[in-house]
Order: sequence, then structure tokens, then C-alpha cells
Amino acid sequence: MELDYLKHVSNKLGLEESPELSLPIHKATTLPVTLWYSHEEDSLILLDQNKLPFEVQSIKIRDWKDGVVAIKNMVVRGSQAIGVAGAYTLLIGALQAKSNPNPVEEVEKAAREIAYARPTAAPLAWATFLAYDYSRKIYEETGSVERFIEGLRTICDFILAQDMALNYYMRRYGQKIIKNGDVIMTHCNGGSLSSTLMGHALGVVEEAYSNGVDVKVVSKETRPRSQGYRLTVWELNRVGVPTTIITDNMISISFEKLGVNKAILGADRVARDGSVANKVGSADIARIFKYFKAPFYYATSYSTISLEVKRGSDIEIEERSIDEVTYPYSLIAKDMKSKGLVSEKALEEWPPSDRIVTREPGRGQVRIFNPAFDVTPSRFITAIITDIGILKPAQVRRLTENKVLNMVKKKVLDFGLRFPEGLSTIVPQALKK
Amino acid sequence: MELDYLKHVSNKLGLEESPELSLPIHKATTLPVTLWYSHEEDSLILLDQNKLPFEVQSIKIRDWKDGVVAIKNMVVRGSQAIGVAGAYTLLIGALQAKSNPNPVEEVEKAAREIAYARPTAAPLAWATFLAYDYSRKIYEETGSVERFIEGLRTICDFILAQDMALNYYMRRYGQKIIKNGDVIMTHCNGGSLSSTLMGHALGVVEEAYSNGVDVKVVSKETRPRSQGYRLTVWELNRVGVPTTIITDNMISISFEKLGVNKAILGADRVARDGSVANKVGSADIARIFKYFKAPFYYATSYSTISLEVKRGSDIEIEERSIDEVTYPYSLIAKDMKSKGLVSEKALEEWPPSDRIVTREPGRGQVRIFNPAFDVTPSRFITAIITDIGILKPAQVRRLTENKVLNMVKKKVLDFGLRFPEGLSTIVPQALKK
Repeated sequence: MELDYLKHVSNKLGLEESPELSLPIHKATTLPVTLWYSHEEDSLILLDQNKLPFEVQSIKIRDWKDGVVAIKNMVVRGSQAIGVAGAYTLLIGALQAKSNPNPVEEVEKAAREIAYARPTAAPLAWATFLAYDYSRKIYEETGSVERFIEGLRTICDFILAQDMALNYYMRRYGQKIIKNGDVIMTHCNGGSLSSTLMGHALGVVEEAYSNGVDVKVVSKETRPRSQGYRLTVWELNRVGVPTTIITDNMISISFEKLGVNKAILGADRVARDGSVANKVGSADIARIFKYFKAPFYYATSYSTISLEVKRGSDIEIEERSIDEVTYPYSLIAKDMKSKGLVSEKALEEWPPSDRIVTREPGRGQVRIFNPAFDVTPSRFITAIITDIGILKPAQVRRLTENKVLNMVKKKVLDFGLRFPEGLSTIVPQALKK
Repeated sequence: MELDYLKHVSNKLGLEESPELSLPIHKATTLPVTLWYSHEEDSLILLDQNKLPFEVQSIKIRDWKDGVVAIKNMVVRGSQAIGVAGAYTLLIGALQAKSNPNPVEEVEKAAREIAYARPTAAPLAWATFLAYDYSRKIYEETGSVERFIEGLRTICDFILAQDMALNYYMRRYGQKIIKNGDVIMTHCNGGSLSSTLMGHALGVVEEAYSNGVDVKVVSKETRPRSQGYRLTVWELNRVGVPTTIITDNMISISFEKLGVNKAILGADRVARDGSVANKVGSADIARIFKYFKAPFYYATSYSTISLEVKRGSDIEIEERSIDEVTYPYSLIAKDMKSKGLVSEKALEEWPPSDRIVTREPGRGQVRIFNPAFDVTPSRFITAIITDIGILKPAQVRRLTENKVLNMVKKKVLDFGLRFPEGLSTIVPQALKK
């Protein structure tokens, strides 16, 4: 029964098997779904985003600890996608804990570890606890570990299917703001690869392009991990959307030389005040767009809205390894040595590790600062395109849990999915993340 | 006699020989002078900035065509430095043309090629034609090729010495805007390495730090060539200035998390309207600083002021090779292969070269856009720190050639340098670049 969800979205969206990849492919665009679950093998299949664009491969997760590592190392990344991955990782944890003395307690511990593997994006904790709370309730009612696990299978599949279904509505709402001739700036990868399929900002653009709208994208490289260069360009190229790559310091000049007239980005977390946390650099773009009087949009699922986080400044900003920043330079040094451009004695690491600090630098010290996100204040945001409608930041302030739940439920049913029994009381709670 | 200039600045500034490098070192800070000329060997010695920070090496130029290549390939770079390098390259051209039938005509042709090797920075054409016009006049008066070349030796040494002398005044003016506790953002490398010695923005900061002012720098990486990461951090580290590295998309968050309160950048060209061309991304920083109500300065020599370029939008913006953008990714792909992270069949170039275009992209195409500069409108510039004083953009509008010449002359004489005879009539003309 739990497979109904995946079968239904496969049929409805036109997915087909791709034996090489072990992941379904969206026929119309050839985009792969970023993650899937095999209930026969009990494995979570992830498109390995660290290998893109060089190689299109998937990996299988059968141990929940590996799932946590995959989320931390960004094998699977993007706010919507890691939410779904987190839920399935919990299912795998439950399967592993099944014959232990206190399986549900162990799953609860795992849930905490999974939920906070990455702190900034809202859907990870949201989906993980949604899955846990839903199946925990079944366990409390039935006392059956089997039913607990069945419940997890159902809710995980629902979370995956829901994401794909709601992306469909997000794309449709997004069409209202896309015009023929648009040149749209984006940052990082908020698209098919950051959701399950064609969500976030690029989902909106890909939908328009597929419907014959003349639309182009300017993709920022997005150092240090270069999701814009590696993932967004790969994704758009696969769909055919004409794309221009710029480095992260070319925002102003893109207005003058590339005719940029709009920005659409994905989002990791929307606070109650309508401000948005997203990949570091998003707030820079938003501020510059304000000067050019050009509209700046986020496109993201309701699952990234945190109604209990009052202000953007309350959002925890993840800092990541400095190796992400230094990595290309050690390769460049090695390459220069191998080509004889510098001597064998030349440095291979810069700055030298004995001078690097991650706190306030002193004399002769170099700090490397690598926050993964920043927060865009609501006054720089034209609107947030979501799966429950296009919301002005002021409208986010007026949302209530029940209003969101009813809008989501309507969409889910409209798409032909069942709304799992008991979820109505869980969702409003999970939305208070 | 022509060596007087170089000897004088060496003594005055405290330079000492560094046999390994063949370039003088500034004793107080250990910074190398970026370029020097050996009249014994007749070679132009350049600090090889493409090898920094991995290796500190110099190269010798004895053929003017190699000088042009070194400027184009950015062995020597930075607006003030390439001006001086251009003038000496012309001297080498003259030495090579000496026994040809029409040496002065050949030198004139070389001057055009050198002057436009890179189009955006003003000092390259300025210094090259200044050197040519000055010695051409001597040739017209004397008919002697020997005197023509002697004139070139004198004017080239003067241009080098003048740059070092005027940087001294620029640093002194700059102290007025530096305060204890400042955290100063900079971009690209506008410093010692982009001038002859301690010019531009970092010269101001290094002077303050050397005088015991508590000042820190936040250096933007500056993709694609990473002058911020490679050169600015190297230079500041050598002097001891506490430095933080950020990628180019961390401007807004640096206010919140690093306490940035000021920006100082070097400049490539100042237009009559007070707008400034500098490394791409400068205009992005300036716009964001405006929102944070934080002062945004350029620091640069009078030689970058183009009184005949009326508007910033008239400045030609150099576009550079797309290889600068793609280079690290081919290294990353190779590294992943060598570590077995991707298969041998994985791509090594992304985007695939058959899909890359440098114009408007069509379906399935990817454009890589690599402009080296952008223009900051004057309303975003607090002031321009120069060697002739701190100028508000409105003051640039009111400058005249003779006013500039008199201010420069006063400084040069004050520093103890002779002002070459006949130069007074040449400089105003050269300033009309």
C-alpha cells in the first residue's frame, strides 16, 4: 500500500526507469529524480551530487549513519531534498533497530541526530520529526514495532510524493511572474536537484521554458562549493534552457551587459517575519536588485516556512569546513608544479596551515570564514513563490498552521494523493519547527 | 644620471637588495618592489605574480614583445604597476630598434601595441605615451637616436620613482580615514603588488598597521583569477596585518558576522564624472555598502584619472579568456578521477566545449561571461584617496590638467626627485587619455 504514493506520482508526472542510475527519470525533461526508496531492497537511492557534473551516478544507503554522512557531505543537498532524505534515513534507522530492546527510543535518538545534521534548512528537522511523530503515534496506539515501521514507510513515501506533487503547483504559480524575454539570475542550485523533481526556482523556469516561453538564466558560480556552476548549469543544460555562467562578483555588470531583469532563488528557511535564509550571497543579490528596481523572488515549498522562528536573525547559520574554500588552490599549486611553472619547492597549501585560524585573526594570521547561508531581510524580497501560492513577506506573517495545512491538503488531494490518516494533527505541530 | 631616481627612492624608502629575487625589498615590511629595471643588463625585472603565493620569483624581460605578453598574461598586473611596466617595455623596444632604419617610428608602433595590451586600466596607455612623447620631443630637438633612448631611460626611471614617491603621499592622506578597530573589506589586489610598492588600498592599510593602528582586513577571493585570495592575503600576511578570507558572495554577512565597517579598494580608471572602473565586483560591494551606510573608498594614483573620459559608461571593459573561469573545474575532475571518486569515463571539462559560447546562448548552450572590470557610479563612492589628496567624486569633476600637474610636481619635488625638464608640457597632454 505504501508504494501507491510513488507509483501515483510516477504515472502522473511521467517518470520512467533508468536502469543505469537506479533512479527514475522525468521523461519530458530527462531530469533524474534526486532520491528514491526501494522497499524491496530497503535502500535509499541518492543521486550523488558531489559527482555532478562530471558523472551521473547514484549511491545506495542501507545504514542510517551513512545517510547522515551523505546529508552532511552534501551527496544529497538542497532544502527540500534533504528533508525527504532525512525521513528515509530515519526509516532505515528503524529497520536496523527493529530487533533491539527499545527500538522506538533508538529511533527517537536517531531522529535527533538526523534532524540536526545540517542546521539551517528547515525541511530536514521538519520531515524527520514529522515522520517520527506520525509513526510514534501509531506505535503508541498499537504497541507494534511492525506497525511503527509500516507507518514510517507510509509517511516517508508520502513526504517524497508530496514534495513532487507540491512542486507541480509551485511551478504553476511561478508562471504568473515569468514573461517572454526574461533573463533570470539565480544563485546556488535551487531547482530539481535541490528538491525531488523540478522544485524551487529552476522548476519555475524549466516549466516556462518547456512551455515555449523565451527565458534565459544567468547562473552564479556560488563559491566555495560551486553548486551554480556544477549543478544549476548541468540541470538547465539537460533541459535545454539557455544559460550564462558568471562568477559571484558579477551582479551589477549583469544588468548592464546581460540584460538581467529578475532573480529567482530557492530557499532554505523562511522566518515568520518574511525574511529568508538561503545560500550565502543571496542577500547580496537581493540588495543589489533593489538598486536596479528589479524584482527579486524566492521559490520554495511550504516545508521551508518556520512559523515559530520570529525573525530572520534567529536562524542558525551553518559554518562549513575551510577545506571547501582552499581545495582548488592546492590543486592549482600541484598543477603548476607538474607543468614546471613553479619549482618542486613551491608551496602546495595556501595559506600555510600554521597561519590559518577560524576565529578572530591576530598578527600574521589568516582567518577563513565559510558560512553556508545568509539571511535576506523581507524588505528586499518581492515575493515568495510557494506551493500554496505566491506570498508577499507580509502574508507570511499572517499565516497560521491550520491555514497552511488546509492549503497543502487541498493540493495533495487535488493531485490524487491520499492524505495519511492522523497527519492533520501532526503537520501543524511539525510546522512549529 | 638616470639611475639617480632609482637610487634616491631606494634610500628614501629603505629598500635593500635581495639577490634571490633580483628585486629590491622594502626593509620595514619585507614587501618586494613589483618591478625594477637593470640599466647594466638592460632588462626589466618583474615579480612573477602568476606564481604567487606558491613561489616568490622574478623574471627578466629583454624583448619588448615578451613585455606585452607579461602584461597581457598578468605576470605584472594592477593599474599602477602595468603603467610602469609599459614604459619600460617601450624602452626595451627602443633598444631593439636602435640600429634599424626608422627606430623612432618603430617605437611609436610598439607604443600603440603596449598601450592597448589591456584596455581598462588608465596608467598603461598614460605611462607608455608619456614615455614616448617625452623622448620623441628630445629626438625632434636633437635628431639623435642615442638621446632619444637616454630620454626614455630618464622618463621610465622617473615614472617608476614617481609611483613609489606618490604612493607615500597616498598612504599619508589615507591615514585620515583609518580608525582604531576598523575592519576593512577589500577586493582583488589593490596594494603593493598592483603598484610598485605599497600603493592603492592596501598601502593605506599597511601604513596604518605599521604605525600601530589596530586594523584588520577582510579580503574577497576575487574569482576567477583570485587576486584577493592569492595576492592580497600573501601581501598582508607578509606585513602581518590580520586578515580574513571570504568568497565573493559574503559581503552582507561580513557586516553581521565579521564587523566590517569600511571598504577600500584600488582603482583602474577614474572618469571625469567621478565614477570608477575597477575589478569586477567592486560595484557590487559599493551598492551593498550604501545599504549598510558604511563608507566605501577607492585609493589610487592620479595616473588612473582620465579627465577626457566623461562618463564611467564610456570606459571600455576588458573581457578575458573563459579558461580563467573553467580552469579549477578541470583540475577538480582530474583530482576526483585520481582518487577514484569518479570513473575514468567521467567528464574532465565542464561545460563540454561544444556547448560553450561567448555570445547570447541558444537552446542547450552555455555562455561563460568573464568581464574583468565593472564601473561604480560616483554616488556610491564616499571618496577617492589619491596621491594628490582625498577627492570627493564632485572634486574629480572640477580637476584640470594643470591643477593636477602642479600638485604632482609639488609632491615629487618635496620627495626630493627632480621633475624631468620638458615634462610639464607633456603631462597635461598625457592626462587627457
